[in-house]
Amino acid sequence: MSEQHRLSFDTPGRGSVEITAEIAAVVRKTPLDSGIAHVFVRHTSCGLAITENADPTVRRDLETLLQRWAPDGDPAYRHDLEGDDDMAAHARSLLTGTSLTVPFAGGQLLLGTWQGIYLFEHRTHGHRREIVVTLLG
Amino acid sequence: MSEQHRLSFDTPGRGSVEITAEIAAVVRKTPLDSGIAHVFVRHTSCGLAITENADPTVRRDLETLLQRWAPDGDPAYRHDLEGDDDMAAHARSLLTGTSLTVPFAGGQLLLGTWQGIYLFEHRTHGHRREIVVTLLG
Amino acid sequence: MSEQHRLSFDTPGRGSVEITAEIAAVVRKTPLDSGIAHVFVRHTSCGLAITENADPTVRRDLETLLQRWAPDGDPAYRHDLEGDDDMAAHARSLLTGTSLTVPFAGGQLLLGTWQGIYLFEHRTHGHRREIVVTLLG
Repeated sequence: MSEQHRLSFDTPGRGSVEITAEIAAVVRKTPLDSGIAHVFVRHTSCGLAITENADPTVRRDLETLLQRWAPDGDPAYRHDLEGDDDMAAHARSLLTGTSLTVPFAGGQLLLGTWQGIYLFEHRTHGHRREIVVTLLG
Repeated sequence: MSEQHRLSFDTPGRGSVEITAEIAAVVRKTPLDSGIAHVFVRHTSCGLAITENADPTVRRDLETLLQRWAPDGDPAYRHDLEGDDDMAAHARSLLTGTSLTVPFAGGQLLLGTWQGIYLFEHRTHGHRREIVVTLLG
Repeated sequence: MSEQHRLSFDTPGRGSVEITAEIAAVVRKTPLDSGIAHVFVRHTSCGLAITENADPTVRRDLETLLQRWAPDGDPAYRHDLEGDDDMAAHARSLLTGTSLTVPFAGGQLLLGTWQGIYLFEHRTHGHRREIVVTLLG
């Protein structure tokens, strides 16, 4: 059995936005006993990741590393139509991935205590990001 | 409910091959209303990723970065039985992953406009790559 | 249809522990004909990956690269409450991911010949790691 929901988020620009509460709200209402929640972004310049929800410097340090791994405006890039952050955003998307999955049971996500679900905006400017949540059980 | 399909692809060597049409063809025929398509490579030296399907220089730049992240013939490698690209291919596989998932509904993959599904061959030479597609709904 | 199982593993510290046999044992007993096994760690400082199961130097070389990609005690980190390996572990977790999925059929994981499932402990010291396995079919 499965059910599908569409969500959208307006990001303020590069950085991460916690979306745990929105995914948890979908899971709370499902008639499915248990299964997995699949979260998918319909874009190639943002991503999804589960990381620590307590100290926000964790996500600041992840941004520092993402900038190191996929620098903006790297002279090696050939794809630069939309600016210095364009190719960097696609490369960050490869590293974070475009989907994630979390088990649920009894209407609750089975996240660990310190785990949060984050939408990573990889472009410098904000965008409206469409997400498909599929619950399978 | 689920169904499973086996596909195989002959890669021409390092680089990415678009397989969106082949996955879409499996989804088009399913009796399942909606759910997710799970795509899995049965290998440790190739990978799967969703990235931009418009400008091919995106995938050329991803290759440039993969070569930087996991250089061929790095002197630090101890695993080099099969040549300079051997360990680099396993490391690229860690970064791209061996599976990906895409939601579907009404016989259509719910990819965004600019998203394509790519098989990344991480070895220098071409290989026959086996893929298992599982539809869950 | 789905079923869910809880496993836990005591890691001996940084490095990878093969858990293929434990996941295969769950799959062997399922009444589901075919589907996918979803494996999830409830932590932000360890990860999961499928890689070569033959030559252990592959996983040693992956550790070498993880140390290069996310160095311990990097001066750029702001999150260092729990020591030099703290932020490095969160960054490694972003790269390896916190879940993986493998198709199964007839009570068998459909892994390739050279694929093993590994729990990567990203902290220097050992931890008890909780895993949720969800079978969907």
